[in-house]
Amino acid sequence: MAIEEMGFEARPVPGRQRTAIGIVGNEGRAEPARLSGLPGVAEVIHVTRPYRQVSREWCSEPTIIQLPGGVTIGGGSIVVMAGPCSIENEEQLLEAAVAVRDAGASMLRAGAFKPRSSPYAFQGLGLRGLEMLARVREETGLLIVTEAIDAEGVGAVADVADVIQVGARNMQNSSLLKRAGRAGKPVLLKRGMAATIQELLLAAEYIVAEGNPGVILCERGIRSFDPSTRYLFDLSAIGVVHALSHLPIIADPSHGTGRRDLVPAMARAAVAAGADGLLIEVHPHPEEALSDGGQTLDPAEFRQLMREARPIAEAIGRRIAEPTGVRI
Amino acid sequence: MAIEEMGFEARPVPGRQRTAIGIVGNEGRAEPARLSGLPGVAEVIHVTRPYRQVSREWCSEPTIIQLPGGVTIGGGSIVVMAGPCSIENEEQLLEAAVAVRDAGASMLRAGAFKPRSSPYAFQGLGLRGLEMLARVREETGLLIVTEAIDAEGVGAVADVADVIQVGARNMQNSSLLKRAGRAGKPVLLKRGMAATIQELLLAAEYIVAEGNPGVILCERGIRSFDPSTRYLFDLSAIGVVHALSHLPIIADPSHGTGRRDLVPAMARAAVAAGADGLLIEVHPHPEEALSDGGQTLDPAEFRQLMREARPIAEAIGRRIAEPTGVRI
Amino acid sequence: MAIEEMGFEARPVPGRQRTAIGIVGNEGRAEPARLSGLPGVAEVIHVTRPYRQVSREWCSEPTIIQLPGGVTIGGGSIVVMAGPCSIENEEQLLEAAVAVRDAGASMLRAGAFKPRSSPYAFQGLGLRGLEMLARVREETGLLIVTEAIDAEGVGAVADVADVIQVGARNMQNSSLLKRAGRAGKPVLLKRGMAATIQELLLAAEYIVAEGNPGVILCERGIRSFDPSTRYLFDLSAIGVVHALSHLPIIADPSHGTGRRDLVPAMARAAVAAGADGLLIEVHPHPEEALSDGGQTLDPAEFRQLMREARPIAEAIGRRIAEPTGVRI
Amino acid sequence: MAIEEMGFEARPVPGRQRTAIGIVGNEGRAEPARLSGLPGVAEVIHVTRPYRQVSREWCSEPTIIQLPGGVTIGGGSIVVMAGPCSIENEEQLLEAAVAVRDAGASMLRAGAFKPRSSPYAFQGLGLRGLEMLARVREETGLLIVTEAIDAEGVGAVADVADVIQVGARNMQNSSLLKRAGRAGKPVLLKRGMAATIQELLLAAEYIVAEGNPGVILCERGIRSFDPSTRYLFDLSAIGVVHALSHLPIIADPSHGTGRRDLVPAMARAAVAAGADGLLIEVHPHPEEALSDGGQTLDPAEFRQLMREARPIAEAIGRRIAEPTGVRI
Repeated sequence: MAIEEMGFEARPVPGRQRTAIGIVGNEGRAEPARLSGLPGVAEVIHVTRPYRQVSREWCSEPTIIQLPGGVTIGGGSIVVMAGPCSIENEEQLLEAAVAVRDAGASMLRAGAFKPRSSPYAFQGLGLRGLEMLARVREETGLLIVTEAIDAEGVGAVADVADVIQVGARNMQNSSLLKRAGRAGKPVLLKRGMAATIQELLLAAEYIVAEGNPGVILCERGIRSFDPSTRYLFDLSAIGVVHALSHLPIIADPSHGTGRRDLVPAMARAAVAAGADGLLIEVHPHPEEALSDGGQTLDPAEFRQLMREARPIAEAIGRRIAEPTGVRI
Repeated sequence: MAIEEMGFEARPVPGRQRTAIGIVGNEGRAEPARLSGLPGVAEVIHVTRPYRQVSREWCSEPTIIQLPGGVTIGGGSIVVMAGPCSIENEEQLLEAAVAVRDAGASMLRAGAFKPRSSPYAFQGLGLRGLEMLARVREETGLLIVTEAIDAEGVGAVADVADVIQVGARNMQNSSLLKRAGRAGKPVLLKRGMAATIQELLLAAEYIVAEGNPGVILCERGIRSFDPSTRYLFDLSAIGVVHALSHLPIIADPSHGTGRRDLVPAMARAAVAAGADGLLIEVHPHPEEALSDGGQTLDPAEFRQLMREARPIAEAIGRRIAEPTGVRI
Repeated sequence: MAIEEMGFEARPVPGRQRTAIGIVGNEGRAEPARLSGLPGVAEVIHVTRPYRQVSREWCSEPTIIQLPGGVTIGGGSIVVMAGPCSIENEEQLLEAAVAVRDAGASMLRAGAFKPRSSPYAFQGLGLRGLEMLARVREETGLLIVTEAIDAEGVGAVADVADVIQVGARNMQNSSLLKRAGRAGKPVLLKRGMAATIQELLLAAEYIVAEGNPGVILCERGIRSFDPSTRYLFDLSAIGVVHALSHLPIIADPSHGTGRRDLVPAMARAAVAAGADGLLIEVHPHPEEALSDGGQTLDPAEFRQLMREARPIAEAIGRRIAEPTGVRI
Repeated sequence: MAIEEMGFEARPVPGRQRTAIGIVGNEGRAEPARLSGLPGVAEVIHVTRPYRQVSREWCSEPTIIQLPGGVTIGGGSIVVMAGPCSIENEEQLLEAAVAVRDAGASMLRAGAFKPRSSPYAFQGLGLRGLEMLARVREETGLLIVTEAIDAEGVGAVADVADVIQVGARNMQNSSLLKRAGRAGKPVLLKRGMAATIQELLLAAEYIVAEGNPGVILCERGIRSFDPSTRYLFDLSAIGVVHALSHLPIIADPSHGTGRRDLVPAMARAAVAAGADGLLIEVHPHPEEALSDGGQTLDPAEFRQLMREARPIAEAIGRRIAEPTGVRI
């Protein structure tokens, strides 16, 4: 029988209309496609999950990622990462950094390399942007998270960043995932806009399988049919990930909604839902931002968001991490 | 020119590739299909919204719905409706009612008429169920919300219920909407599983246009591609509705996720997001429920949910409404 | 054990990470929710389908529906139904009827009752429209298909129509489905815009379970994220339905795309994919249509579509049914 | 005024509820986010398309891509590319190649580099696979299409392939797109599983903007809510692309449905819908395939598919291209 030729055990469960056949011993590697192509097979149904090291079964305790300055992601505290979508120049970056630090963010998030839908949209400052990030990290004591958009770029990003971001469009870019798995820095992995939670965990498995256990997942909205919001922000992903995996997951309501007016309420909701952190787009002057201005808060709005998020964190027995300063 | 024949004004805005033509004076009634069929028209783009009385422009203050016993929906307080998916017998119903009242719910929600995907699934007790609801209302002082599944049934439901539910599968059943609009009781209108927010508001407009201003909207999850949850619970709908409409909107995390383990976190998130109420499935013995047991809390879980929801409400300056008892 | 208390047999299949338990003897009636609520249950997976009489297992031969004048649906021939979205007046209706008959349609499809998203959109002529349909049937010999939008209206529609349409918004309106199941006329059941194929088949099962075996399914587009088309026309539904059910399925590219320019190509594709019929919106003057003008062909375009569809039908060994005339 | 500061012209169209403002002179580069962030702006609505060189406005004639041996893509003929998902060994590849050539395919499609959801799934033979492709091209005269999964790999793929494939998971991998745009070979660009048509065209614009006009688009199914098929095969994409762009578009019913039993009907439908080519997974022994076996045809099924596709192509005035042999 074909199943046994593949080296597995077959256990039939006959029913009146159909016979179910349990397959044991496959450890996630059986190719469902080979089975569904066999004559007489109506459907292949998975019982075991295809990922391994990222699963709760592999490690029942939540992963806690240690960053410089004593910042941790994944424990009782909630880490806030904030900053402009794109680095535009050093003044803008420093102004944003000071504003988000003063409001209580622990990490500065700003893009030097920007993956854009259109080749004619602003693509970021590149290496010059990374240098600005390094100087602003020095000046403000904020930890840095910034995106690498290809395997070649991972090294340069890892030299500067405390956390390397892999963006939604690259969630299944396996070359980038593997390279990030060898970069020696934690990775913030954003959910693809059409990725299931299982695919998100499999993408994380690519990084962990290369020897890097420090993966922070991020819900940032998925595709849906209602044009009211840019994406559909899937807050139940937080609980689903926590049930299946020991990895931390943070929430990005800026991309998740695409609407500045919805960001504060969705940030509060994410904290209430158990998110391990927030990623918020903040720009000193959103109306002048070179990208994503419509979903970006100004510093005053961000301070108000932080004021609202703190008591919600406390209501569920957690707290918003305070910025520590990397030089201390 | 065709636009003027339709009685509207046409204002051209010539561009390099295309000419945009603004149409003024249409008051939401222009048939886009007639325009898109005209020769030389590449696309019809709406600027004005097609709904009227449910819009913020029609009434800038939030609607506050007055129910017996001083319960209000839509102001600063958050109303909790809870109970079993289906009424199974009077003991089960009373036991559930007492449990949810003691935990702090103001309204009992239980189904006498059940719209089910399969004709072989339990379809509810019908009129006998309504009689049980009337007696349990009398005994417990809880307000009643229960579903009408067709225009004929609205009268019988309105005799017993304080709020008439129109379910997701019937959100665009215009005969039912119109009849509910003349029923003299507030209506809880659940979002269809593939309905845009605009379509939800248009469905509400059907009810309001018949003279019934008391419409409570409800987010209960929409269709998406990830099988992790039964539906995708769209919490940003709360903020979107509040931006467009003066009507209150509540959240149903039980249907919204379909998973008992996710309900508490999503209930907290809904409160944090600004929901005007919660709809929670609670059964004395969920594992014996005739329908929806997998997404139903037991009384102890529901009490815990209420304990967690209260400080979150307070953190955003609101409070969970206390049960008042309709006889007082 | 709980499964045996429910009257079923439990057959365990132990694996390394999880134990699968086969349940036998349930005949589609086991409540998955009761099982998923049990302690230690991670997931409930269905093997048997929940519908019965509409399944291929129930009847392996395709259902062939006999209509007056020798028209059949579901055999080797492909039936074309065409006409205006709404009946506007008798002249328009007759003009459309003559045009579609002359191009080769066997059935006239036109709406007397129109379910619309907005209460301010044109809602149809109602009973006056049905009278016009009866007269036009008499004059042209075309069979009639028209929509009933509530259980009360089924009788009046059944008096005039050869086939009663249940629209996409009402696919899960169980009162309407049950009433249509007792109407004594075949039913054209349109897929809901967020309905899975399984839900479509369960809705059909409601009709068949009332004793009416004459159900014609219809794919008309489902919700998706790309605004390029009004709906996403799911042509694979045709093959999926044919694999699971003996019922015929036709395709409606007018609603399925919402774009007049795409209708002919998608009609050809539907025929090539094995559809048992086509439903095409045709209006003598689409640019003046009171509804759906943007997706409606004019008579010349429809004649061209018919000319293109015929050789494609022949290429797969089928043919487009010729109009017969009900009086003959 | 802000719009004029950005260098554009502003043309107001006042309405009763809102004022629309037309912006002229932006040539697709206005950042909508900057506008939607401005006070008093309710919505930003695009009139002009953001892509340029791939648009019908840029070039009204369809692009015809010339390949070795006189094969053309994008004219009246329909090119069939077929072969196994993965190259497993040289015997399997050669056997598949001979089978698809004998059935009438012009191009061999087989993967040396495989982007997989799971790091534990078979990842392809890599450079060894490319060498096998080169030898099989020599022996059979078939043109080769194979995938590059990162920018580094483009050169090696371009040395062997007649057409470089960019896969669905990499549709927005801008580093890969730019590199493919400089590779000197035509590019087969598959639509991402959550990509709108507009995003697909923008991804193509990345390639064309680097100086490579030879882009072949490919519809391969998008994400949807119905588990009946692996993806939802969007055949209307063919007509939508042809309306907006001069680039050819082919269809991949193997990935588009994920079901071997649906592939022939959907291939026929794609031809009827106007596709400029087909991409079909064929394996000498699908039940032994290392990947995608469940959606793969065997040689006999593929020959039957080709026999059915030819008369459908003729019915719409096109023809299936015959294999020419690259050595001739």
